[in-house]
Amino acid sequence: MSLHLAQFIAVLGGQLEGDPELPIDRLAPLEAAGPRELSFLSNPRYQPQLAASRAACVIVAPALAEVARARGACIVADDPYLYFARATQLWKQHHRPAVAVGIHPSAVVDSSAIVHPSASIGPLCVVERGAHIGADTVLKSRVTVGEDCRIGQRCILHAGVVIGADGFGFAPHGGAWVKIEQLGAVRIGDDVEIGANTCIDRGALQDTVIEDGVKLDNLIQIGHNVRIGRHTAMAGCAGVAGSTTIGAHCTIGGAANILGHLTLADHVHVSVATVVSHSIARPGHYTGIFPMDDNPKWEKNAATLKQLYRLRERIKALESQQQTTPIDRPR
Amino acid sequence: MSLHLAQFIAVLGGQLEGDPELPIDRLAPLEAAGPRELSFLSNPRYQPQLAASRAACVIVAPALAEVARARGACIVADDPYLYFARATQLWKQHHRPAVAVGIHPSAVVDSSAIVHPSASIGPLCVVERGAHIGADTVLKSRVTVGEDCRIGQRCILHAGVVIGADGFGFAPHGGAWVKIEQLGAVRIGDDVEIGANTCIDRGALQDTVIEDGVKLDNLIQIGHNVRIGRHTAMAGCAGVAGSTTIGAHCTIGGAANILGHLTLADHVHVSVATVVSHSIARPGHYTGIFPMDDNPKWEKNAATLKQLYRLRERIKALESQQQTTPIDRPR
Amino acid sequence: MSLHLAQFIAVLGGQLEGDPELPIDRLAPLEAAGPRELSFLSNPRYQPQLAASRAACVIVAPALAEVARARGACIVADDPYLYFARATQLWKQHHRPAVAVGIHPSAVVDSSAIVHPSASIGPLCVVERGAHIGADTVLKSRVTVGEDCRIGQRCILHAGVVIGADGFGFAPHGGAWVKIEQLGAVRIGDDVEIGANTCIDRGALQDTVIEDGVKLDNLIQIGHNVRIGRHTAMAGCAGVAGSTTIGAHCTIGGAANILGHLTLADHVHVSVATVVSHSIARPGHYTGIFPMDDNPKWEKNAATLKQLYRLRERIKALESQQQTTPIDRPR
Repeated sequence: MSLHLAQFIAVLGGQLEGDPELPIDRLAPLEAAGPRELSFLSNPRYQPQLAASRAACVIVAPALAEVARARGACIVADDPYLYFARATQLWKQHHRPAVAVGIHPSAVVDSSAIVHPSASIGPLCVVERGAHIGADTVLKSRVTVGEDCRIGQRCILHAGVVIGADGFGFAPHGGAWVKIEQLGAVRIGDDVEIGANTCIDRGALQDTVIEDGVKLDNLIQIGHNVRIGRHTAMAGCAGVAGSTTIGAHCTIGGAANILGHLTLADHVHVSVATVVSHSIARPGHYTGIFPMDDNPKWEKNAATLKQLYRLRERIKALESQQQTTPIDRPR
Repeated sequence: MSLHLAQFIAVLGGQLEGDPELPIDRLAPLEAAGPRELSFLSNPRYQPQLAASRAACVIVAPALAEVARARGACIVADDPYLYFARATQLWKQHHRPAVAVGIHPSAVVDSSAIVHPSASIGPLCVVERGAHIGADTVLKSRVTVGEDCRIGQRCILHAGVVIGADGFGFAPHGGAWVKIEQLGAVRIGDDVEIGANTCIDRGALQDTVIEDGVKLDNLIQIGHNVRIGRHTAMAGCAGVAGSTTIGAHCTIGGAANILGHLTLADHVHVSVATVVSHSIARPGHYTGIFPMDDNPKWEKNAATLKQLYRLRERIKALESQQQTTPIDRPR
Repeated sequence: MSLHLAQFIAVLGGQLEGDPELPIDRLAPLEAAGPRELSFLSNPRYQPQLAASRAACVIVAPALAEVARARGACIVADDPYLYFARATQLWKQHHRPAVAVGIHPSAVVDSSAIVHPSASIGPLCVVERGAHIGADTVLKSRVTVGEDCRIGQRCILHAGVVIGADGFGFAPHGGAWVKIEQLGAVRIGDDVEIGANTCIDRGALQDTVIEDGVKLDNLIQIGHNVRIGRHTAMAGCAGVAGSTTIGAHCTIGGAANILGHLTLADHVHVSVATVVSHSIARPGHYTGIFPMDDNPKWEKNAATLKQLYRLRERIKALESQQQTTPIDRPR
């Protein structure tokens, strides 16, 4: 089951320095790789580990070719991380059976749903009335795609994903809640990947939209009427409340929360666990995290924090007093 | 498939100003609605959009009737948002097939479970030993209701919901954890809606209780022995730790976290992402969010925050020094 | 279906003060227990409730034996909470049917997966190619165990758990994301319990590892390449980003978030909702929570917080000014 270095070069390109017949049994991180394993160095920060690595071969950038060559075999590639990504794809292609195309007999697919013949609907999935599943799209196990929802081509939906549950909409009435039926659906573009147990709600009147190339991690919540722009990536446990529009090429950190009815520009980067409470018109990196401390210090700071505006007033008082003390006047 | 304005009036009441034969093809938001679409204006903030709307007809409050009439057809209703909610229900009734009553053949329902004949158990659901499912309740797809758990009438449980997994209870012993078997169950009232992939754990000794009319969004975690009062609503990704009691008519923001063994009064409103660390005895609106900023500013503020109590001491020192400077004494 | 006190003593030990023939119908919390119910007092804080309790019998520590005896029957045990945990196990054994061993007919188990004959694979579970399920392990309903993942002995995986979905790994390329195939798997030790809808991703190159005795609550996200040490417990909605190592005997509070590529020592305790943004080398208790307040106060404090570093500068200015005022110099 090993691949020779020559096989990587033949498919992925790159410049090999070393023996093309060298067999590779596995891909491995630099510090763990052994003499029959292929590794990579993408972050220059880890360069010190390069010399010490026992890897059969290391994928490196041109700038490191000389250092790498001194150690042993290497593949020189303009973008080593991208090369490594493609190497994992090549590896998978050779070592794992191809995805089973078609509908698993345990899946429940409504007769009015349209599933492309090249799509794969895994075990115990549910595809409801009027849903569309595009070419080469894979629903792993236990995925639900609700009625009239459309999934593009080459998407991957991991286990437990729920597309098209009702958005959370109610009108208050006499102390109780009256349901607003969610009459929209969900539209998902091409090349979208959606992590395990993530939920994307159907729109209230119009569709919730996930554009091409979006990548969502596990356990994410996308509210109704949200639109997420092309190639935006969101890490696990993040949440987006209803009717918010996120631009293209954004990254949203894990457990970040974006409130409803906001607009985020393209190229906005939100840190982990940050609450986005207003629209963001300019690209950039935005953060709101309470810094962790050991508990006793945190307690002291948190207690002070609750009277922070009073501190400001006390500073103001000091300032005004200082400016009016007679001693200052003559100066 | 269109409805005439007269059909809305006949079922939902309201005062129509305009042609009752006007056909409606869709419900739509004010800014997007076209000449065969019905819209609504509930928030006076959006009044400027009213004149510009191309909607066939707009649902408005009596105070706006005159303005609306000048634009075109309108339905005057005391509470336009409530009227709109009911219009979505009417629309759904006419345009979507009725929920399939009964147990889907792919569902796994224990022979000792009691499912009301008017209930709907969707594909790939699991209803365990001794569970009860009330009249007109709908379990969409892939819902689990654990043993002895009881769901009331007219509830909706969305895909992936788990009712009655074990609460998280262990006794520490010699560095390991000894399981406390969870002997209670979950009791859910009438008219409760539970969002996709939300989990409600069974009680340790007594039942976890969700009272009538509660609305829970997606990916919410409700710990064992919790009680949630009537008509309380919780947004997505919120969590409630064990043995906490939340009052009636509360709203809990998305990703908010409520610690265990607390009591929240009725009519408490908790902001998104807020951590509730102590009981709340009085109705009101409570918040604890670190304000987002651009990252460089956040870093400066966060660094200062870690020494906040020292700042307070420095202010105190300044104050005491200022008060004892000779220049002040004679005054 | 009642048990006599003598039956508890016979199996669990402890010293009974009272009538061994006393019938017990239920286990119950101290304040709710009635005259045919067994309760316990583990936290001395609740001692005042002891005298008032109507429980048939109370499990207490030796130090409270005298007080408890004055009230009625008691079982004296060195660790009442541990005794209570075991009592729940004894109770369950007598009152609930044993777990059904074997594979439920509705489960989808790949023919190459190895399931120990004493394991229980519940309804609508999916066990993929090459997965191993150890002795006495229970997969409740709707659990997915991905290919090549290994679950140890005596584990419990609750409904909706997803083991071995792809880790979240992509290389950026020309504004889009290129998938890094996740070639590792997940390895889970013995005596691990995993809560409903929790997700543990497969490693990119090596395995994600959950060591023996770990307890994970519901809706937790464990990223790829993470390692969680023995007997660590994590509460609901927590998240651990990729390649982080958590030590043994840690406790992680609900909704806490641990960033990627970090190392946490053994015996680290992280408070609820805290963001761990750097490695923790020393055992201890760490916190980072924005304190909740009523909303108007929070607004004032939050506004001030955004200019906190400016306050520090103002204090510095005051200090330097004060030290240089002529009045101070002569002193």
